[in-house]
Amino acid sequence: MKKHNFSAGPCILPEEVFKEASKAVINFENSNLSILEISHRSQPFIDVMEKTTSLVKDLLCIPNNYSVLFLQGGASLQFLMLANNFINKNKKCTYLDTGTWASKAIKEAKLFGEVITIASSKDKNYNYIPKSYNIPSDSDYFHCTSNNTIYGTQMKNFPYSPTNMICDMSSDIFSRKIDVSKFDLIYAGAQKNLGPAGATLVIINNDIIKEAKHNIPSMLDYKTHIEKSSMFNTPPVFSIYVSMLNLKWLKNKGGVKWIEEKNKEKANLLYKTIDESNLFYGIAEKEDRSIMNATFTINKKNLEEKFYNMCVKAGINGIRGHRSVGGFRASMYNAMPLESVKTLVEVMGEIERKA
Amino acid sequence: MKKHNFSAGPCILPEEVFKEASKAVINFENSNLSILEISHRSQPFIDVMEKTTSLVKDLLCIPNNYSVLFLQGGASLQFLMLANNFINKNKKCTYLDTGTWASKAIKEAKLFGEVITIASSKDKNYNYIPKSYNIPSDSDYFHCTSNNTIYGTQMKNFPYSPTNMICDMSSDIFSRKIDVSKFDLIYAGAQKNLGPAGATLVIINNDIIKEAKHNIPSMLDYKTHIEKSSMFNTPPVFSIYVSMLNLKWLKNKGGVKWIEEKNKEKANLLYKTIDESNLFYGIAEKEDRSIMNATFTINKKNLEEKFYNMCVKAGINGIRGHRSVGGFRASMYNAMPLESVKTLVEVMGEIERKA
Repeated sequence: MKKHNFSAGPCILPEEVFKEASKAVINFENSNLSILEISHRSQPFIDVMEKTTSLVKDLLCIPNNYSVLFLQGGASLQFLMLANNFINKNKKCTYLDTGTWASKAIKEAKLFGEVITIASSKDKNYNYIPKSYNIPSDSDYFHCTSNNTIYGTQMKNFPYSPTNMICDMSSDIFSRKIDVSKFDLIYAGAQKNLGPAGATLVIINNDIIKEAKHNIPSMLDYKTHIEKSSMFNTPPVFSIYVSMLNLKWLKNKGGVKWIEEKNKEKANLLYKTIDESNLFYGIAEKEDRSIMNATFTINKKNLEEKFYNMCVKAGINGIRGHRSVGGFRASMYNAMPLESVKTLVEVMGEIERKA
Repeated sequence: MKKHNFSAGPCILPEEVFKEASKAVINFENSNLSILEISHRSQPFIDVMEKTTSLVKDLLCIPNNYSVLFLQGGASLQFLMLANNFINKNKKCTYLDTGTWASKAIKEAKLFGEVITIASSKDKNYNYIPKSYNIPSDSDYFHCTSNNTIYGTQMKNFPYSPTNMICDMSSDIFSRKIDVSKFDLIYAGAQKNLGPAGATLVIINNDIIKEAKHNIPSMLDYKTHIEKSSMFNTPPVFSIYVSMLNLKWLKNKGGVKWIEEKNKEKANLLYKTIDESNLFYGIAEKEDRSIMNATFTINKKNLEEKFYNMCVKAGINGIRGHRSVGGFRASMYNAMPLESVKTLVEVMGEIERKA
């Protein structure tokens, strides 16, 4: 029995993608070579890289003056890389603190200049998104995190930024429409809605490169990777290939607009169940609830393990909340079918009837 | 027909490894989950990481005071990371320049301190390994590259270093016995004898951490990764998993001692053919010839394309030399069967008889 995989990431990808990826590990595009043994300088892989890049541009309607890069090191390497590149003229930057990942990004930026934490939701263990703050214009950039997997919160609107706008979209990119032109740098670890762990997507406004610091290590310099079309060194070939398969799947299904509807449908079903329940309650503030990760807990502490075991029995995987929040977390990424959420909701109903 | 894949990297891995990896993309260890969708914090993946690490320790007989890490970013990220960590007290370091990769490592190190290039073989387009030089003891470390894929040269012996010894072993690690205790830091991109592109192996003497710089970004600090057992952030799950499969294969076959004999057998066959030929000649100095990458060229320039086409017809892949050297390059990594080298040698014989 195939599991209902609610894992927060690495996470579910479409069945078709797994199947095609599995085949390519044996025989990639009828070359009689495995995707794992082809040179990254060979034409077939250059084609994969180009297709993946243009699928990203197409699906997110990226303006022409932006570059799409596939790097390594995850969001964690971006934390220091973006600060190293862009804390420059003003020697300071502004961050919105919406949780662990934002805090980690702030920590790395402090090595390169002054960090203004313009607002934080730490007072309520990050269960909401701070609003009503003014971003100083004499700051080199403003940084925010669009979706916070641990707490189940998501920025529904992005603030006006008088300075360069940088966003960590690791856990909700490709899940909803975004206006890329409002951002100067977007980055995302692949392992949610893009592909397997090991690749990092970077979308960067080419115009901001001239504001970047020079004389920094080649691998940490966005300019290097733009000039070499993500091929400065050996890229994570397989992760990029599977990302291509996954983006093709998304495009064929109907693109970001289509998936946003599907994602809302799944999230609405789960949140409705939580709100109508006397046993379960949501952790995040309603207006900031994520359509990717729903965090909730159970009124009766003694039923926690029982509910967890019922979930396991129903084939549900990865439902435990993060240790810093507790309770449960259902991650409903793009590839999750509505049926999996229905299964979860049924188990919730079952324990409620018995309680 | 399965190809004879002489690609310089990413490169051939054993058939058994491709088959098992392909299965795991659909169903990982009968979990009904793909290896691509499991959480890196789940016990099954923690087990994979631990098994891979202990296989590395076992196969290379690594002393207890060393850590084995799996990072991202390839050797290129190590170039700056090692310099950033270890150019410290003496503010200078010493490098042996044996080619493009060594030169790239030198370039990055210059951003962090003074670099002494103690010897170089650039005068002969890197077709030999410089010997007879004395490494200054007031240098923070000595850095060398054990095998140079582009030129087909390999260090048969390593010099005595009065300071910390750092080696880029990207293209020959696991191919021959090495005495790890003579090195303080060894690093290698996975994509030759370890696994698919996307993971970087680091073997580090824990004792040298106290000599490292502090206050550097978390992701660039070896201490971070040692403390978190390579799990500071999401690791490249699939690349590590396939590395585990590959190292298991190597161990079951007989380990590094066994593969070294096999590698010598393959290299000897090819070099013997080159030396006995009137048409082909080797590019690297005989005493420095690599058992991983043989570089050779053809006397009659007009036969170059003919030979290449005959190779393609025989199912031989990836035989073109690097653009900076020209001619041909046969990379004979661990997983290459002797039969593939025999096929190549037969084609060489065929064109020679006709020439």
